[in-house]
Amino acid sequence: MRTQVAIIGGGPSGMLLSRLLRLAGIDSVVLERRTRAYVLSRIRAGVLEWGTVEMLKHANLGARMQSEGFVHTGTYLAAQNRGFRIDFDALIGKKVMVYGQTEVTRDLYDAHGDAVIHEVDGVTPGGLDTDAPFVTYTKDGTEHRIDCDFVAGCDGFHGVSRKAIPTHVLQEFERVYPFGWLGVLSETPPVSDELIYANHARGFALCSMRNAALSRYYIQALVDDPLEKWSDAAFWDELKRRIPEDAADTLVTGPSIEKSIAPLRSYVAEPMRWGRLFLVGDAAHIVPPTGAKGLNLAVSDVHYLFEGLTQHYQGDDHGLDCYSERALARVWKAVRFSWWMTTKLHRFPDQTAFDQRIQEAELSYLEHSTAAQTELAENYVGLPY
Amino acid sequence: MRTQVAIIGGGPSGMLLSRLLRLAGIDSVVLERRTRAYVLSRIRAGVLEWGTVEMLKHANLGARMQSEGFVHTGTYLAAQNRGFRIDFDALIGKKVMVYGQTEVTRDLYDAHGDAVIHEVDGVTPGGLDTDAPFVTYTKDGTEHRIDCDFVAGCDGFHGVSRKAIPTHVLQEFERVYPFGWLGVLSETPPVSDELIYANHARGFALCSMRNAALSRYYIQALVDDPLEKWSDAAFWDELKRRIPEDAADTLVTGPSIEKSIAPLRSYVAEPMRWGRLFLVGDAAHIVPPTGAKGLNLAVSDVHYLFEGLTQHYQGDDHGLDCYSERALARVWKAVRFSWWMTTKLHRFPDQTAFDQRIQEAELSYLEHSTAAQTELAENYVGLPY
Repeated sequence: MRTQVAIIGGGPSGMLLSRLLRLAGIDSVVLERRTRAYVLSRIRAGVLEWGTVEMLKHANLGARMQSEGFVHTGTYLAAQNRGFRIDFDALIGKKVMVYGQTEVTRDLYDAHGDAVIHEVDGVTPGGLDTDAPFVTYTKDGTEHRIDCDFVAGCDGFHGVSRKAIPTHVLQEFERVYPFGWLGVLSETPPVSDELIYANHARGFALCSMRNAALSRYYIQALVDDPLEKWSDAAFWDELKRRIPEDAADTLVTGPSIEKSIAPLRSYVAEPMRWGRLFLVGDAAHIVPPTGAKGLNLAVSDVHYLFEGLTQHYQGDDHGLDCYSERALARVWKAVRFSWWMTTKLHRFPDQTAFDQRIQEAELSYLEHSTAAQTELAENYVGLPY
Repeated sequence: MRTQVAIIGGGPSGMLLSRLLRLAGIDSVVLERRTRAYVLSRIRAGVLEWGTVEMLKHANLGARMQSEGFVHTGTYLAAQNRGFRIDFDALIGKKVMVYGQTEVTRDLYDAHGDAVIHEVDGVTPGGLDTDAPFVTYTKDGTEHRIDCDFVAGCDGFHGVSRKAIPTHVLQEFERVYPFGWLGVLSETPPVSDELIYANHARGFALCSMRNAALSRYYIQALVDDPLEKWSDAAFWDELKRRIPEDAADTLVTGPSIEKSIAPLRSYVAEPMRWGRLFLVGDAAHIVPPTGAKGLNLAVSDVHYLFEGLTQHYQGDDHGLDCYSERALARVWKAVRFSWWMTTKLHRFPDQTAFDQRIQEAELSYLEHSTAAQTELAENYVGLPY
């Protein structure tokens, strides 16, 4: 088989890239290890930067998002049970869209699922440093080979794409945070119409939502905490202690329909291009969920790569040549912001009394400085591409 | 002897407080361990916030400052030998004054030196938790006692005032940085008309000045580096490697007339009031010199205490009762800012490759974001009292 762009990974970044390429008349194939049902069942974050919203609309995927998504013009922050609001719209005239990654993926599959070959094994990119790259894989016991012009590695942190780059070329940067997020999904109305990011001496908490009847809450916990320790009652009790009092008083609790603990990590691989291979999204970088940058960064990578590929087929390689540099410049800014939000809002095991006061001073300053709020707002809604 | 306010310490904070009190018709005595010549020879930083400038003018001390000081409307930052400018005036319509602490002290002594009793030993405040506080001391072998309404502890980090607060009352917060500043004073024209704060993989550097013919330069060094290791030639060579190339090319070097290594520390003691004792400036808090907040914080403490004392003698104790809270609120914001600038601009021994990239991303973000520059500017020129 031959295609112009072989895309490894059928998550949102691979699917969005493939979709945009098709709309631009460029042929691609998406290889996905899992079944369609599995991919569509994965639960991820759900705050979309406005640039992400525009990209999805550009791919003719905006209809359901625009009718079912929730536009948020601000967010709440809280310190020691007292909240204050950051008004994105008033500060910088921008907003975000709350629309789950699961929904984005479903829209992509509804519109573009025919581009995907599911349940492939042993996916292996080859010839990446030549003019004739290819990808081999096995499906239903038969070996296949796709010859292509380029390979897009959209296969996440554990995928094969990044590993195809020689170790002497790849530079890795990492920060593992000494805690995780215990997340609960519950069929209850959200406690707030906007997100609440809460700093508390007992640890961080986040009140988020999927829709008017589906809430998503998180509390900072130990990564190796056994889930049995966290009964629903224990979770709700701990959450209430950490969020603003008025929110705790009105919180509607109910049985959890999903509960899990996720580690927090910052990770960046450089460069994001090697020969004819381009890394996109989690394959090249991971951010902690604080600030919801993961999907949005993947979409900005897609933006730069899509631009480079369309320019290439018009005879101009500048965009592809700059891909790694341009993508990484934005990646590092978002990695910085996610690290900053994580550092400001969580309790660290080695935190001294001085560190604690500095955290309080940061949040107090943020509450009272328009400049500091503007800085948070412009990063939260997404820096320009 | 009896006075209304006994002031321990004849540095700029004690002297400014005494001066303002006299102008308001309130009597005070300043006790200073050292000679006048010694106090006037101490070299300290020299960037005054505009609020500090206003306070000095308010004390009728502005004449020489206004003719000899240098108004700076911005500052340079640099990362890896490339500089960019933060324009305070354009961003927030404010500026700073470069006028050495030594000069401020001289102006204070010229105007108000008669309020000081020099070369006192064994200064001991007493009765602080009663309505009849006093201070005892020895001068020329004779014991003296000053009875007073209040004691102002303006005697610096190593002074006796803070130690008079019972340990079960006092809470201390501290961060010691794993490096120092090697500073050189030289009779050469400054390399730049404004300060240059330089981040470099080899360590921090700062180009500062006292006047058109007197420069003050610093480089990050180990606190226990022997000064012999740093010949003038070695210092200039290292400085040039860390600052922007155009600055390195035009730097005029010359013999150092002062050379020393100072440690960097953040320290805050809470509360700043105990009974009839009020701590002011370094007696209650220390900041690293990055961002030049030390003297300015002392002056803002003086502002709050002076306001509280004048209100007291008009029959209203609210200002004195709020002194610690109001002073500390501003102290912590400046401690946060000094910590932030120090953390962003220095090289830390345990800095990982990830931390290094985050530092680069912070400075790159700062270079390109008006919001981030506004945040730096409003802190640098000084938050409102």
